[in-house]
Amino acid sequence: MERPAENGPRPSRRRVLLGGAAAAGVGAMTLGGGDALIRSLRAPAETVANAERVHGGRTYPFHGAHQEGVATPPQAHARFIGVDLKKDVDADGVRRLLTLLSDDASRLTRGESALADTEPELATAPSGLTVTFGFGPGLVERVDPKAVPDWLGPLPEFETDRLEERWSHGDLLLQVCSDDPLTLSHAVRMLLKDSRAFGEVRWSQEGFRRAYGTEPDGTTMRNLFGQVDGTVNPGPEDEDFDPLVWCGAESPGWLRGGTALVLRRISMDLDEWDRLDRPGREDSVGRRLDDGAPLTGGSEHDEPDLEATTPLGFPVIAEYAHIRRARSEDPDERILRRAYNYESATGEDAGLLFACYQRDPDRQFVPIQRRLDELDLLNEWITHIGSAVFALPPGCSEGGFVGQTLFEG
Amino acid sequence: MERPAENGPRPSRRRVLLGGAAAAGVGAMTLGGGDALIRSLRAPAETVANAERVHGGRTYPFHGAHQEGVATPPQAHARFIGVDLKKDVDADGVRRLLTLLSDDASRLTRGESALADTEPELATAPSGLTVTFGFGPGLVERVDPKAVPDWLGPLPEFETDRLEERWSHGDLLLQVCSDDPLTLSHAVRMLLKDSRAFGEVRWSQEGFRRAYGTEPDGTTMRNLFGQVDGTVNPGPEDEDFDPLVWCGAESPGWLRGGTALVLRRISMDLDEWDRLDRPGREDSVGRRLDDGAPLTGGSEHDEPDLEATTPLGFPVIAEYAHIRRARSEDPDERILRRAYNYESATGEDAGLLFACYQRDPDRQFVPIQRRLDELDLLNEWITHIGSAVFALPPGCSEGGFVGQTLFEG
Repeated sequence: MERPAENGPRPSRRRVLLGGAAAAGVGAMTLGGGDALIRSLRAPAETVANAERVHGGRTYPFHGAHQEGVATPPQAHARFIGVDLKKDVDADGVRRLLTLLSDDASRLTRGESALADTEPELATAPSGLTVTFGFGPGLVERVDPKAVPDWLGPLPEFETDRLEERWSHGDLLLQVCSDDPLTLSHAVRMLLKDSRAFGEVRWSQEGFRRAYGTEPDGTTMRNLFGQVDGTVNPGPEDEDFDPLVWCGAESPGWLRGGTALVLRRISMDLDEWDRLDRPGREDSVGRRLDDGAPLTGGSEHDEPDLEATTPLGFPVIAEYAHIRRARSEDPDERILRRAYNYESATGEDAGLLFACYQRDPDRQFVPIQRRLDELDLLNEWITHIGSAVFALPPGCSEGGFVGQTLFEG
Repeated sequence: MERPAENGPRPSRRRVLLGGAAAAGVGAMTLGGGDALIRSLRAPAETVANAERVHGGRTYPFHGAHQEGVATPPQAHARFIGVDLKKDVDADGVRRLLTLLSDDASRLTRGESALADTEPELATAPSGLTVTFGFGPGLVERVDPKAVPDWLGPLPEFETDRLEERWSHGDLLLQVCSDDPLTLSHAVRMLLKDSRAFGEVRWSQEGFRRAYGTEPDGTTMRNLFGQVDGTVNPGPEDEDFDPLVWCGAESPGWLRGGTALVLRRISMDLDEWDRLDRPGREDSVGRRLDDGAPLTGGSEHDEPDLEATTPLGFPVIAEYAHIRRARSEDPDERILRRAYNYESATGEDAGLLFACYQRDPDRQFVPIQRRLDELDLLNEWITHIGSAVFALPPGCSEGGFVGQTLFEG
């Protein structure tokens, strides 16, 4: 059995917050398993020439100050899984579970098989695999009831919410992302097998974006409405990224360097949306559909002119437009978005897995969503049907496990 | 609105059966929309460098002697959709539906939006999109009851079948494949919108393989059991590909240059499989798990030695081994496999969408499956739960539609 990454160079460079390198997206990625992977695969002779563009060996380091899967450029495929712990799992059980899962994740993200891996050949092409763990209040309480941050629990109710239990809450989050769907499937299977003795899957949500290489790195995603989605988003190269995303001194100590995930399942009524003409759709968002530029002109990343008016005196970007309502005058009311599209095979159930990261949801996601809940024309076509909040601990060092800091309080 | 492919060179080269070029997999692909796509996307300045490896503009020509999606190197993502026609759809209705869908498909596969496309921006990166149409007996009968080939209908029952109606049969097949999941989603949506007046979705099945570029082109896929799956498979460069796959003089005239698809949904019991040790798994298939070589040695593409025995006199490749049972002494009993893995988000429902193509299922798939049904150790862990057979007409020329030959009989 070949395990390419074991012979390749180990991931060692930290990828986040490297300024220019991180800004380039792939620049900070290690290429651990790449060459070895190519060697290990017995390609028919006539296809060797294309080996140069093979990218299945790309890895992100599992160990470090922060967990990957947050500042990491979004991979093509994601699985968000909410696990409910069994009643008899106490602090020691949680520790054993997290030790096991961190060990699995550290191997799988390197392109190695997990310890009890029954299909080790499915682990050899990580394709940028990341595994990110998050804790619901039910998990934190079992270890240390005093360690639950104020914001960790159900969000306040919003008027337009139509939440379903089957897409909400959970004790433990597994967020698994990769550019390769087979690698993702295998990683999820390994993690769930090792979780079985400790808990049960409460929900599992699959998301997708453009495949790796379909578009240039850094292209803003489009959602199933065809909208450019996520233009205004802090990047790891921005000065204010750290204070917006990573928990600091105000958090319980175990969470410093961690973050908070708010995951909303937003159902989108594609049929009704299709009935709207193009100007109507552009008005509802405040951006042009073709290139995502604000209706007041320029290109995608230019600032919208919220004061601009039409010759008749109406605002060019309407009062009810999504981008106006989502915006705050308080620069702290921003979040890191990392959303994925979702769709059932028949297309009847489709929408957005709106995943956003921040140091404090009560001060970031909640005020934004309150404005959108009150007035956002998009609410005509979208409905929030799932909601979960998780505390994502900082990363761990080699030999440690994610969540270790919770046991050291 | 930008439509890259309209300004780029039109696909013109025939991709199949070009010998060396086709053998190279991507060699025969046109790069119609590529450059234009890159120009049309507003990439942040720092990521322009990676534009060289952007591959979303790859196209396969829709028009030609054969439909694409058969001899085409399998893309990463597939959707197989069975549609039941409404009762009042007569021959003229079928013609209108096929004209509409062929027009959609010809545009979408070029990276252009469909005529009534409400999200044209989602069409710009075809990423090797193919749309393939297949007819069940219910469709053919409405046009010409005498044109139904003998083999078009439910397969004979097999002992180990546990077929479910919800994964079986159908009047019209839409097979949509692309290396990009968002492109695939959009193409499916357009095709289904234009089908709504004529029929209803009976089933929709989603499949995946390795992402484009994860491994070198031509690498044999692995299924969710971790097995190398599909080693013995005729390729377009093989002399006997044409007579095995494309319907010839013995077929109703409208089907010449077409093919027959047998689509089996094969549920795989991953948990039970995991209980088996590695030698047990290798015995059940007759191949090594690590590299797919026959248990009698060599490498993946070497012939198994079915006569070889162990020192104790037992066959090295057991009597019940999958590769022994699947093999026929009759060289005509072969099929073109183009399978996809499937899995629910929780992983509880997983398996293989076994899609295979041939000129006559009664003479090709059926005898193979009969042998496997009688004796194949793999049957302990796999169950066929869906079955559908479709006649795939030949390709059409520009201005024509797929299925046109059926109306000319």
